[in-house]
Amino acid sequence: MKIDMVKPSILPGFMELLPGDQIQFNKLADTIRKTYESFGFMAIDTPIIEKSEILLAKGGGETEKQIYRFLKGSTDLSLRFDLTVPLARYVAQNYSSLTFPFRRYQIGKVYRGERNPKGRFREFYQCDIDIVGNGNLNILNDAEIPSIIYSVFNNLGFQDFTIKINNRKLLNGFFEALQIQDNSEVLRVIDKIDKIGTSNATQELLCCGLSFEIVEKIFEFINISGSNQDILLLLNNLNISNANFKDGVCELSAVTKYVKLFGVPDDNFKIDLKITRGLDYYTGTVYETFLNEYPSIGSVCSGGRYDNLAAYYTKQKLPGVGISIGLTRLFYQLNEAGFFKKEVNKSITKVLVIPLDNNIDYGISLANFLRDKGIITEIYLEEAKLVKKLGYADKLGIPFVILIGEKEVENKTATIKNMFTGDQITVDFNASYEIVNA
Amino acid sequence: MKIDMVKPSILPGFMELLPGDQIQFNKLADTIRKTYESFGFMAIDTPIIEKSEILLAKGGGETEKQIYRFLKGSTDLSLRFDLTVPLARYVAQNYSSLTFPFRRYQIGKVYRGERNPKGRFREFYQCDIDIVGNGNLNILNDAEIPSIIYSVFNNLGFQDFTIKINNRKLLNGFFEALQIQDNSEVLRVIDKIDKIGTSNATQELLCCGLSFEIVEKIFEFINISGSNQDILLLLNNLNISNANFKDGVCELSAVTKYVKLFGVPDDNFKIDLKITRGLDYYTGTVYETFLNEYPSIGSVCSGGRYDNLAAYYTKQKLPGVGISIGLTRLFYQLNEAGFFKKEVNKSITKVLVIPLDNNIDYGISLANFLRDKGIITEIYLEEAKLVKKLGYADKLGIPFVILIGEKEVENKTATIKNMFTGDQITVDFNASYEIVNA
Repeated sequence: MKIDMVKPSILPGFMELLPGDQIQFNKLADTIRKTYESFGFMAIDTPIIEKSEILLAKGGGETEKQIYRFLKGSTDLSLRFDLTVPLARYVAQNYSSLTFPFRRYQIGKVYRGERNPKGRFREFYQCDIDIVGNGNLNILNDAEIPSIIYSVFNNLGFQDFTIKINNRKLLNGFFEALQIQDNSEVLRVIDKIDKIGTSNATQELLCCGLSFEIVEKIFEFINISGSNQDILLLLNNLNISNANFKDGVCELSAVTKYVKLFGVPDDNFKIDLKITRGLDYYTGTVYETFLNEYPSIGSVCSGGRYDNLAAYYTKQKLPGVGISIGLTRLFYQLNEAGFFKKEVNKSITKVLVIPLDNNIDYGISLANFLRDKGIITEIYLEEAKLVKKLGYADKLGIPFVILIGEKEVENKTATIKNMFTGDQITVDFNASYEIVNA
Repeated sequence: MKIDMVKPSILPGFMELLPGDQIQFNKLADTIRKTYESFGFMAIDTPIIEKSEILLAKGGGETEKQIYRFLKGSTDLSLRFDLTVPLARYVAQNYSSLTFPFRRYQIGKVYRGERNPKGRFREFYQCDIDIVGNGNLNILNDAEIPSIIYSVFNNLGFQDFTIKINNRKLLNGFFEALQIQDNSEVLRVIDKIDKIGTSNATQELLCCGLSFEIVEKIFEFINISGSNQDILLLLNNLNISNANFKDGVCELSAVTKYVKLFGVPDDNFKIDLKITRGLDYYTGTVYETFLNEYPSIGSVCSGGRYDNLAAYYTKQKLPGVGISIGLTRLFYQLNEAGFFKKEVNKSITKVLVIPLDNNIDYGISLANFLRDKGIITEIYLEEAKLVKKLGYADKLGIPFVILIGEKEVENKTATIKNMFTGDQITVDFNASYEIVNA
């Protein structure tokens, strides 16, 4: 049969990893998952394909342009572009079956047809947690979230990172006090101020129709700095009587106080009035997280408080607070920046049992024995010269090889070779476990 | 702002679970994953969307009808309908970077637009392992696979299951000896014989143009029974001189011998000449697995040996052997059959710390302490009456509640309530860990 061959390739903007990188990626994902679970968040798994009317209920903006949408028969389908809209639909749909506050996490792929996928991805993992209340949700939850972010990045092996926090009520109140009617454009400009610089931002704000005096006041405000306590004091001293502003300062003070109790060190937590989460739907606390050794990556974990999660699907008021880690991009950037060790294993196997001659039976027994003890063990089953068998372990970075020859079978022993040091030792069958588990 | 509400729902044929069921599902998936890993299989993650020309390189049949295929801009895309075609593409694409035999597992969602999705799913998880050789792959690998199937189902809590095995060479050789030119239709009929019964199968085989005498011979052959040794003896005694037949018997004998050494009990492993894996691309050993207490589920784990994995993408000959578990359907059927306990937890949380009055600080310290010790711990942060707080733990099936009042703060103690027995005990802060970890 003649076969028409197709050149094997994947689509641009899709990440696919070789074994070594995949192991690193999986470690990141596992650490995030375990940390989320340690705080009692429950994994939920929603379909990747949903009805377009569900995903586009809010509609508008970039979402509609980027979404993967298609017909199957006469059904209008779309691939999810985030995990928040499916969560909203899930909670609305299962409202009467859920117990609130509903603490869920989801780690899953989402899809956005980015026009220029260079350094961005059209298929990528988001790792989300949300705490959704029924009618109301205590501000203390906003203080627990940074402790989860802290644990995640600490467990991932980072020390020098900063969780930056702000509050949208405080910002809204401040702009109201300045008589700015629609602040969405202002928030958008402030959101990108660290990228575009102050003079460009000034230009853009003036273009919004603000006076030079107002723009100056905005800059003075967002650049308020000092310790968290200093900033809170300065905010109080502004004597702005706007109710939103006061609420915001009050919330920010409470969150700051309790974040400390939740165990986040001062060094890792900073009020920053420039954090706005520009176009998002947040209504209170907002977060962004920066790895200080990798400033070019930008925020690695963002989120905030929203008043009403599922307004498009239910009349129930469901306030919540949550965060998201864009894992695919984070992995890509860390990998580019040389974060991962290069001499990485390409296998998770700890022991490769190599039967020499025809001692396969004994080799299988030993492999079964080690596996039963919890050691990830493979047995080399191909016919090949010893050098090729050792080469297999070497290429994959498998730390231990156990050689089984006539002698080992006769004496019920195992000859264990440490592939890193080259050391070789012959021990009793049972004792092999202690050696490879040391 | 007036909002047009959309009724929250998912597409038909898509599975989405409530927390209690999701916990059970995740346990199955985790067990499969850990078992696959214990044998040194490496997780690979391929994109869900691929180029249509890749996924449809082989084309034809049900695949092309069921596939989710669409245009994004001018790009012709499809959602993967299994994990084997992406594996073939991956191995061909990364051939020079991989070490062979390449042992990979993948647990992921695949998509098939089933016309009538009742009891079947359009989005479902497959859990695959494959061992792919470069040029050749020892028959011993075919014997290791049943030991992995055995471990998986054993670890999932099953004892009474049967891994049925056969060999396509043996079948092909037998049909060749009977002068049947194209046996694909015959294989298809035999494959469903347990579903449609002998008389319907006879009818269908006669319709294929076979004589009654030949059909009788086929039935006599496929119904050969007895112990595995008996069957192998009878096969040898048939004195069929066809080379394929002889090869097949030889392979089946070797696999049967080594499966025992790999630790699979006789009760769980059975040669069955009716197993054909009908329309699939297998060329040697074939497997199906049946849970004997749930016969209506049908095969829960199938697979086999193939000569050449990636013929559509590379000239390299890549033989392999693998299996697949259709997890979504397995979970659905087990759930329907009442396999899972009904009074299941709806949370993975082990301890809920409930601060009474305003003792939030001490409560947070205790929650942090337990979490650091590896106990999944939540703290109840909402303002509510005690009965509502306890109700939260009760509804979710959280086993321990720790009450923190004035007394506990004063004496540095914790009052622990066992939610199943109702027992309550007050112990020192540090001692709380031993109680909830017992």
